[in-house]
Amino acid sequence: MNKDFFRVVSPARFLELLGQFPPLAAETVELDAARGRFLARDVVAAEDVPPRSRAAMDGYAVRAADVFGAGEANPAYLDCAMDVPIGVIPSAPLPPGTCARIVTGGMLPEGADAVVMVEHTFDMGAGVVEFRKFAAPGDHVMHRGDDARVGVVALPAGRRLRAQEIGLLAALGVTCPAVGARPRVAVLSTGDELTPIHATPPPGGIRDVNTHALCALLRDFGAKPVALGLVPDDQQAIHAALALAVADSDAVLVSGGSSVGARDFTLAALAALHDSEILAHGVAVSPGKPTILARVGLKPVIGLPGQVTSAQVVMTLFGKPLVERLMGDPHALTRKPFTFPATLARNLASKPGREDHVRVRLEYVGGDIPLAHPVLGRSGLLKTLLDADGLVAIDAACEGLEAGSRVAVRPL
Amino acid sequence: MNKDFFRVVSPARFLELLGQFPPLAAETVELDAARGRFLARDVVAAEDVPPRSRAAMDGYAVRAADVFGAGEANPAYLDCAMDVPIGVIPSAPLPPGTCARIVTGGMLPEGADAVVMVEHTFDMGAGVVEFRKFAAPGDHVMHRGDDARVGVVALPAGRRLRAQEIGLLAALGVTCPAVGARPRVAVLSTGDELTPIHATPPPGGIRDVNTHALCALLRDFGAKPVALGLVPDDQQAIHAALALAVADSDAVLVSGGSSVGARDFTLAALAALHDSEILAHGVAVSPGKPTILARVGLKPVIGLPGQVTSAQVVMTLFGKPLVERLMGDPHALTRKPFTFPATLARNLASKPGREDHVRVRLEYVGGDIPLAHPVLGRSGLLKTLLDADGLVAIDAACEGLEAGSRVAVRPL
Repeated sequence: MNKDFFRVVSPARFLELLGQFPPLAAETVELDAARGRFLARDVVAAEDVPPRSRAAMDGYAVRAADVFGAGEANPAYLDCAMDVPIGVIPSAPLPPGTCARIVTGGMLPEGADAVVMVEHTFDMGAGVVEFRKFAAPGDHVMHRGDDARVGVVALPAGRRLRAQEIGLLAALGVTCPAVGARPRVAVLSTGDELTPIHATPPPGGIRDVNTHALCALLRDFGAKPVALGLVPDDQQAIHAALALAVADSDAVLVSGGSSVGARDFTLAALAALHDSEILAHGVAVSPGKPTILARVGLKPVIGLPGQVTSAQVVMTLFGKPLVERLMGDPHALTRKPFTFPATLARNLASKPGREDHVRVRLEYVGGDIPLAHPVLGRSGLLKTLLDADGLVAIDAACEGLEAGSRVAVRPL
Repeated sequence: MNKDFFRVVSPARFLELLGQFPPLAAETVELDAARGRFLARDVVAAEDVPPRSRAAMDGYAVRAADVFGAGEANPAYLDCAMDVPIGVIPSAPLPPGTCARIVTGGMLPEGADAVVMVEHTFDMGAGVVEFRKFAAPGDHVMHRGDDARVGVVALPAGRRLRAQEIGLLAALGVTCPAVGARPRVAVLSTGDELTPIHATPPPGGIRDVNTHALCALLRDFGAKPVALGLVPDDQQAIHAALALAVADSDAVLVSGGSSVGARDFTLAALAALHDSEILAHGVAVSPGKPTILARVGLKPVIGLPGQVTSAQVVMTLFGKPLVERLMGDPHALTRKPFTFPATLARNLASKPGREDHVRVRLEYVGGDIPLAHPVLGRSGLLKTLLDADGLVAIDAACEGLEAGSRVAVRPL
């Protein structure tokens, strides 16, 4: 034990400290398993997408010049020189002064530069089409290479894959993208008072809530939780469990030690592990102050408060960015978290010197800015989180906010 | 074919029509697999949570009356009658005029009604503790039953299980909650121009984007997608594929048919299935108008536009509520979707008669209301979705919005 053990850091510093843990190695996965992952490398298009210019509407492909000035009062008339079925490359260019019947997705014949929607035309019979509307070049055309150009980066490394990015990879024929691995995160709970959830706690005991709530959050964040169960409040036992957990995973969460003695056990056990360093002992947030951050080798270990609400707030503030950093998100630790505005419904006191994270329930009462009702209660209870829709951060320097203040809500 | 085939409905009506599809049967799952699911039945607490009143801080349990008026200038002094370790029920009540040393989570002895934090006390030695702060009854106490009371509904049917709800179920010993099943949703793509993504498309062909983008969205929504692959633009083939898909799943998405002929094939094939009904042929949204909704037996089939952006917008507006309805969310079809305010960065025209869903990119330029930049482009391209952070709905009656207008953004 040395003075480093009493190093309470700011939340900004805590995030900075997480920056020393490198992203995990890349792996290639089937495209259908890549959703939510971060690209490990730039994806350079091997071909143009779309591969050729295509019609965006059912109608007629034309040279825009041939229907210049056309309108209801002075329609233009063009011979229909060809019919372009879907999936077929027109065999010949479009002769000037003619048009080609085309369907959505059909490929424009060479020479055509616009599509006139079928509802602005009339088939006169005998191969003649009346145009009641002009077209500008490019109208209703999806141009070759609009989505991706051969040789150019289509999606950069670090991009998170949503459905639309999966779609672009499909279009490019990228069947197995390289993405950052999902971290295996070991979850340990300490506390002699805890019982596994399938057992009836002895008098005075309570069930192990944190293992299950933390595993659910880790899944939300994209990690693979590995629940290692309960560890007694005993320094040897905690040391052994942590050593195993670190060896077998990419990161470790150890929650509990809600009693002073147990907290000390966890700290001492972490400090005693080979090549370990206590990076933070306390973080200036509420709830969540008694949080420990340690490095064991190159792996992070977070000692979470045993109080369920505290643990969940710490996971939202720091666990999510850590998981996303390990998964290869280059901005995980620096991106401002998404918030939206609300109006505080009542006065709210805040103890200066720590960043308060108040749980709020939202109420929409007309207008587009909801009311945020603080949900107050002990951080050892689940109640405040159960009733809450989001978190409102109150700056460490602030002594409170008045009813009617505009606040930023982070959704839960 | 009858006139019903040309029934274009409003988006509100489309959601109403989804109401005829009943939620799936309940199933019991391991608690760790229940995240994101909807409770099928009320969960009534079989015991109080917490089971006894507990300290929310390290310190001393007292009768508040015994430290009435205590402060720095006039401390109170109490004998320490007992030490309450974590997980142990105090064997005797707290004698009046005494205190009990207690740790966070420790159980209050009978008679104690408040906890004074250790930092407001001083151990004088010889079993005497100095109190430099008074306490009100209930201070720093988590009361028995604060989270759940025996015999009372702790979580109602229909509640979505987030980490905090999982935590409460853990506390209650609910190891296998009953939740709505996750729908198996079959995904078919039609279109002769389509090639599976692992193959090189022939000249004029393109790869099948929709199967992969739709499966990713379905996973986002909580469904289990079943990709059934490509079906040729042929009415017999589409009919056979749809019949199989309906038999093997809880809902079917069939995308493509971007050509007029293929659209007709899908419609005719749906109409020809046993016990089928076309509920909507077109919905007044843009993009996404050529959407079909059919009932086959008790199962929904949505015919999605082949255009990738259109299909994804339709899935956001209708596919997500349908999946959540099938999973047992009682408010899936009536809940106002979550939006947050933004300021439109430029004028935006909108064709009246349909509800426009404009893709927007957000820019934060100071203040808490971002600028929303419309991302315009063809709905057959992925580009607009790739560049977008959200959707802005423009009412069917509206002809456009001016730059500077306040808009509601639905995040993507």
